[in-house]
Amino acid sequence: MTLLPRQTVEQVEEGNELAPKFDEHGLIACVTTDATTDTVLMVGYMNRDALEKTIQTGEAHYWSRSRQTLWRKGATSGLVQHVEEMRIDDDQDAVWLRVSVAGNGASCHVGYRSCFYRRIPVGLERSKANSLLFTESGKTFDPEQVYGDAPNPTRL
Amino acid sequence: MTLLPRQTVEQVEEGNELAPKFDEHGLIACVTTDATTDTVLMVGYMNRDALEKTIQTGEAHYWSRSRQTLWRKGATSGLVQHVEEMRIDDDQDAVWLRVSVAGNGASCHVGYRSCFYRRIPVGLERSKANSLLFTESGKTFDPEQVYGDAPNPTRL
Repeated sequence: MTLLPRQTVEQVEEGNELAPKFDEHGLIACVTTDATTDTVLMVGYMNRDALEKTIQTGEAHYWSRSRQTLWRKGATSGLVQHVEEMRIDDDQDAVWLRVSVAGNGASCHVGYRSCFYRRIPVGLERSKANSLLFTESGKTFDPEQVYGDAPNPTRL
Repeated sequence: MTLLPRQTVEQVEEGNELAPKFDEHGLIACVTTDATTDTVLMVGYMNRDALEKTIQTGEAHYWSRSRQTLWRKGATSGLVQHVEEMRIDDDQDAVWLRVSVAGNGASCHVGYRSCFYRRIPVGLERSKANSLLFTESGKTFDPEQVYGDAPNPTRL
């Protein structure tokens, strides 16, 4: 699949050419969901190289903003994401991957299956709680065992 | 729900305090899915005001990067997104909304239900096709009838 230059709004929105928009850092947003349940697992970012490698190999590649390097998901943990389906949005500035995760099936470096393991009470519910609510019963793996003393990617 | 300053990685990842990270433009990424099917409908961005209004009202608000304004989704089209569940990710730099969409149920300004109406052939499949494949059988609404001559938000 060839990445083409962006020429018209009609080409980008209505056409069948891949003409992605990378932001000022050369990145495109990527939502990754579990192909079976469509639970959102993570939001990551791809540069051109990561996008092309994902298309070519069928395995999810991202750009690690904290480590500033190409990141084949699962390279350290073994939790490789096999791409079952890949989509692009209307203005081609976001990608959606539907994946099957290898190993224990987790995708979050904290140890949970999904990075979105906490709920924000909203609307009428917000009067009942003023704190985040955990949605998973516990961690799927112990990050220290998997990553050892590798630096935590979270930045304040 | 009070937005608190980010102090430690443990607070952000393991705690129950809402301490979101806004990027250099003051924005946080937001994935919005259909609460029934969990199909990804769109990826948008929220500034602090949009995040707070979404929590308070239970209706999705975004920051429109093309129009540079707060954007109550559905204000023009009537396709309001009622938030059934709201989550935040591990490092609190992305939000996930699970929504019920009012009216005809569409969320894409081009007229489709989901902004992700095209598939990128990937892995072994990529040899079969060198073009995007449409996934919806047709548009749910006619954008000209809904938006009239309002400027198209897509930027090249």
